[in-house]
Amino acid sequence: MNSAKKRMLSGMQPTGMPHLGNLEGAIANWVRYQNEYESFLFIADWHSLTTLYGDTGQIKQNIREVALDVLAAGLDPGKCAFFVQSDVKEHAELHLLLSMITPISWLERVPTFKEKQENVLGGEQASYGLMGYPVLMSADILIYKADVVPVGRDQLPHLELCREIGRRFNNHYGGVFPECEGLMTSIPAMPGLDGRKLSKSYGNAIYIADDEDTTWQKVRSMFTDPVKMRKDDPGHPEGCAVCAMLGIYQPDSDEELQRECRAGHMGCMQCKKKLAELLNERLKPIREKRAELLDNMDYVSGVLAEGAEKAGAAAEETMKEVRSAMNMKKRTVR
Amino acid sequence: MNSAKKRMLSGMQPTGMPHLGNLEGAIANWVRYQNEYESFLFIADWHSLTTLYGDTGQIKQNIREVALDVLAAGLDPGKCAFFVQSDVKEHAELHLLLSMITPISWLERVPTFKEKQENVLGGEQASYGLMGYPVLMSADILIYKADVVPVGRDQLPHLELCREIGRRFNNHYGGVFPECEGLMTSIPAMPGLDGRKLSKSYGNAIYIADDEDTTWQKVRSMFTDPVKMRKDDPGHPEGCAVCAMLGIYQPDSDEELQRECRAGHMGCMQCKKKLAELLNERLKPIREKRAELLDNMDYVSGVLAEGAEKAGAAAEETMKEVRSAMNMKKRTVR
Repeated sequence: MNSAKKRMLSGMQPTGMPHLGNLEGAIANWVRYQNEYESFLFIADWHSLTTLYGDTGQIKQNIREVALDVLAAGLDPGKCAFFVQSDVKEHAELHLLLSMITPISWLERVPTFKEKQENVLGGEQASYGLMGYPVLMSADILIYKADVVPVGRDQLPHLELCREIGRRFNNHYGGVFPECEGLMTSIPAMPGLDGRKLSKSYGNAIYIADDEDTTWQKVRSMFTDPVKMRKDDPGHPEGCAVCAMLGIYQPDSDEELQRECRAGHMGCMQCKKKLAELLNERLKPIREKRAELLDNMDYVSGVLAEGAEKAGAAAEETMKEVRSAMNMKKRTVR
Repeated sequence: MNSAKKRMLSGMQPTGMPHLGNLEGAIANWVRYQNEYESFLFIADWHSLTTLYGDTGQIKQNIREVALDVLAAGLDPGKCAFFVQSDVKEHAELHLLLSMITPISWLERVPTFKEKQENVLGGEQASYGLMGYPVLMSADILIYKADVVPVGRDQLPHLELCREIGRRFNNHYGGVFPECEGLMTSIPAMPGLDGRKLSKSYGNAIYIADDEDTTWQKVRSMFTDPVKMRKDDPGHPEGCAVCAMLGIYQPDSDEELQRECRAGHMGCMQCKKKLAELLNERLKPIREKRAELLDNMDYVSGVLAEGAEKAGAAAEETMKEVRSAMNMKKRTVR
């Protein structure tokens, strides 16, 4: 790890099999930026408990799937620290310390908190941990003194809160934490197969681990323009999930495609075949690498253990400064 | 440590020099029960941040004072685990996990939360950590699978909440945690020197570390019955701090003393002399032991380090069960 580079921090929850949205929205950025930044990339198992505490049966399996997909997609573990959050206990310690200086009102006004309270939990009461999600996220970021955090628009309030918490710490105890910046990445709006929002809970995703045939079967069944019954009916690409995905995987031909569709010169089946071809092209090397890794799970476990070592050393460095700034006792060697 | 014994858990915040109230209300119980229970006794530095996060300058010094007083008062570190909370990082990990299953509403209804919000903080906003105080306390108790926790009446709601959190964990993930019971100890109502509530912030305390002369000077200036001007005026012992303390240190003579005071047969100075004598008798061996320990701070640090080892091993045992029950990843050796 090269300390002359800026540091990037990013996490992904192990909430199920990673899908194309995860690949193009997150994993691809991890791979893209691994040379530019000193990267700390983690599988956020503790975060996933904020909503999934009632059903943790798949959590270890899900960690495994994320690790496989990330490595298969081209992350070089020698260039970064790739680890499981709960392996670096210092995150929990900093979370506890930051909880002491974070006013409740700051957390109550976070938009995603209210939204999750209403939408994800249904009638269930929000937990203390759900309210503290941004505190844990702040600990994740600050413990590595991250300079940049790739974010989508909905994460911006969390990042602003992280900066506020860091500033409050610095004001109370002296300047330990730098201010992180959001790295506004191009996160393509990947649609679900049925045209709804892509979501593991809707079961409307193509998974990175899907094989060629499964991918084709899923694409074949995709939602398209319901009023375009025959090839030469004029189509409405703006509401079509297949067109949206073609726009992501073949952006240069997007305009032409839309024109052909509207003119009735191109049928939906043609589009689907093209899409399946593009997807299988994109996924082929990942699938091959994934199959190799599956035969070598000790290597995958080793990568995560080594990542936890690297991340743990960096986290402990920061915690030494944090404890000293707060005048807390030094860690007794254990 | 003998595992056939029941386990006791108790903590004390390092909020300043320990005083007579701490001695008779907490430390004396630690010493009294050290043979009966397998005891985990800790200096709760993380807890003290819930209210004192704005002023941590004295925290290390305060930890030292508590350690000195506890050992001077007769705690045998060979019989128990005596440690600093922040040395056992597993408390923070379990706190984080329990935060995920604890509904916010359970915490909002804790009486001490509302009270602290109003009284301790004044205009300052309550922090997320203050709200989570009972979650951290539950982690402290559950991580040692404590059978008993010595409590005063005001701590009973916290203990009830700990049992509820433990039950909720067991319901979700299987039976890991036993139910702890409150050990209702005789906690004498030690008054402040001025007749108000004993409080470090009022500066109305006799400290365990006070020398003989300081103790006498403090007792001499104590608040007594303001209408008893001369020895033979009839007194009102029910409002007198000196009488209250005599009742604690000489309970057998309490009735006679009150009679003598009311009858005007006994003057306040006589009472004060008696009280100073009793206090110095009580504190003499503690002061002597304290002076020895002060010359041997390496020993004191060693005791706390060894205590953290013992407690850490027990805590890690429980965390293994917790992680396994929740289907979380095993700890990567670090």
